[in-house]
Amino acid sequence: MSALDLNKNLVELTMDLCNIESVSGGETKLADAIESALTLPHLKVLRDGNAVVASTMGSRERVIIAGHIDTVPVANNLPAQLHHFEREQVIVGRGSVDMKGGVAVMLKLASEITNPKFDVSWIFYDNEEVDSSKNGLGRLSRNHPDLLKAKFAILCEPTSALVEGGCNGTLRAMIRARGSKAHSARPWMGSNAIHAATPILSRLSSFEPETVTVDGLEYRESLNAVSIHAGIAGNVIPDLCEVEVNYRFAPAKNAEAAKAVILELFGEFEIEFVDIAEGARPGMDTELAQEFLSATGQSARPKYGWTDVARFSSLGIPAINYGPGDPSLAHADNENLPVGHLFDVEKGLRAWLEA
Amino acid sequence: MSALDLNKNLVELTMDLCNIESVSGGETKLADAIESALTLPHLKVLRDGNAVVASTMGSRERVIIAGHIDTVPVANNLPAQLHHFEREQVIVGRGSVDMKGGVAVMLKLASEITNPKFDVSWIFYDNEEVDSSKNGLGRLSRNHPDLLKAKFAILCEPTSALVEGGCNGTLRAMIRARGSKAHSARPWMGSNAIHAATPILSRLSSFEPETVTVDGLEYRESLNAVSIHAGIAGNVIPDLCEVEVNYRFAPAKNAEAAKAVILELFGEFEIEFVDIAEGARPGMDTELAQEFLSATGQSARPKYGWTDVARFSSLGIPAINYGPGDPSLAHADNENLPVGHLFDVEKGLRAWLEA
Repeated sequence: MSALDLNKNLVELTMDLCNIESVSGGETKLADAIESALTLPHLKVLRDGNAVVASTMGSRERVIIAGHIDTVPVANNLPAQLHHFEREQVIVGRGSVDMKGGVAVMLKLASEITNPKFDVSWIFYDNEEVDSSKNGLGRLSRNHPDLLKAKFAILCEPTSALVEGGCNGTLRAMIRARGSKAHSARPWMGSNAIHAATPILSRLSSFEPETVTVDGLEYRESLNAVSIHAGIAGNVIPDLCEVEVNYRFAPAKNAEAAKAVILELFGEFEIEFVDIAEGARPGMDTELAQEFLSATGQSARPKYGWTDVARFSSLGIPAINYGPGDPSLAHADNENLPVGHLFDVEKGLRAWLEA
Repeated sequence: MSALDLNKNLVELTMDLCNIESVSGGETKLADAIESALTLPHLKVLRDGNAVVASTMGSRERVIIAGHIDTVPVANNLPAQLHHFEREQVIVGRGSVDMKGGVAVMLKLASEITNPKFDVSWIFYDNEEVDSSKNGLGRLSRNHPDLLKAKFAILCEPTSALVEGGCNGTLRAMIRARGSKAHSARPWMGSNAIHAATPILSRLSSFEPETVTVDGLEYRESLNAVSIHAGIAGNVIPDLCEVEVNYRFAPAKNAEAAKAVILELFGEFEIEFVDIAEGARPGMDTELAQEFLSATGQSARPKYGWTDVARFSSLGIPAINYGPGDPSLAHADNENLPVGHLFDVEKGLRAWLEA
């Protein structure tokens, strides 16, 4: 079993975490190491599959600080390397951004802050990078609903060490235009489904997405075709054209309201809703969120990508994203993390928890 | 070897021909039977692969009467069956329409008319239903250019026993719209190639095709998308959208003129011409064509589908389509031929050749 030494500095700890490979489904070794390292007098540790929950045991208001321990597949980018530049050091390697830097900060603070201002449940979970049904946080909420009770949650997903509140919701729908087949030498014997799809594309092109203010943050919405397919053979007029659209909607809208936008826009076509996940309100107007901003000295900005904060939101727990690393480098082969982010996030969380 | 008895009536002969399976590439048995059946005193027979050419040997003006002997794959529709209805008998089975009915008429007349008004080259050829490079008529024109010299040609492809002159040309082009990839949570970081393709579809939808009069026949043109494809993943803004268009153009236009229409319409997009085949002028103004119409008592109408008459046209031989069977049933699983068509076409050709 790999041992984790939580007395190492954050840079070394992050690299050690990266070097314990934990592609989704293969997190056992890392979960074992985390469980062992957090077996400390001030923490109560629970293991569920490859998720580990370490909780302080007071009776103060409880907060959750969470992060996933799995990564997308390695791409010849392990072991992690430390690159030295004139002004900054950078950790290069799979997981550095998404999100073993965040996990390192969590482990450091969990072990060191024995008497935090709030009771804290530190949640390390598996299978975030794969199908939602396997998500370790979702499994925990089903197996141990009592563990997912809190006043506020912080997810240490990469935000470049900025505070990002809530997240947009996301909906995918298949819009179908129909026609009737014919030989393309005599197209007037049928009707062309691709041509019939023209209004779908022109409405998408001219759609002006809203920007919606939620709890003081401005959420920019968007509506895009992500795929279009039609075609039977080079000499056949196709009878079906399928356009898949992705609508990203502000957390002020619930699933029904989001569907209504699509139904109104494409009402005369066949519409199949493929999947839908509501967003998360940033909850920046709550007392705990304000305290957090005050302690970190930050202002909040909106998160556009969907993250597991939405799971907390659906459990009634206001949640924000706050972690080291540039989110646009997550999953990239050249995934890399400026070490300054690690210390910024450590400092921010420590200031809040030790206030 | 299967023997063909050319003394049988046209219905029996058509069914015998259908029952000698000859899916493209497997025509040897049928070619053998045709070669043997046409080994007659008044004909000179040449074999090239699975093509058979039987020629009368006088010194009159020469005409070509041609048909292919291969079929598309059998679909549980052999052996051929004869269905009796109150007013009509119908031969049901693979090849009945495309085009063993026409081949039956050709064989009957080739054997019976020993002293035709014109010298006739009866051409039976292979591999018409597959890639153009394998086409038996094309191969004959390369191996025996002397055999493809004539004043006029008739292709016995199905036309419901009507005279269809020439054919439209056909062009396929891939029109590409480009964008740049981005995560669909932040689409404003990229640009959407599907949305960029909107003008391609709107121009196709609003395009008003011409109808062009050529040698007295009206050719209706058409322009259609036959496929459209784009899409990388449900959360990625795609950077490429490909629209394949098929332009059917009147035989008054050559390849360059047809390309110019596409280049003008979609000039700001990437355009790749996938294939192009010029049409065939109907040549209905020639003396031989007029004699043919007069002998058959028919008027000509334009052919929209591309057929091998274009090969004759490219060799400088005016050519028409005239054969039994409804062309819209060609390749259909329920391919079937009203026997009346057989006798109509036999009578028309006989009247012309014996005039």
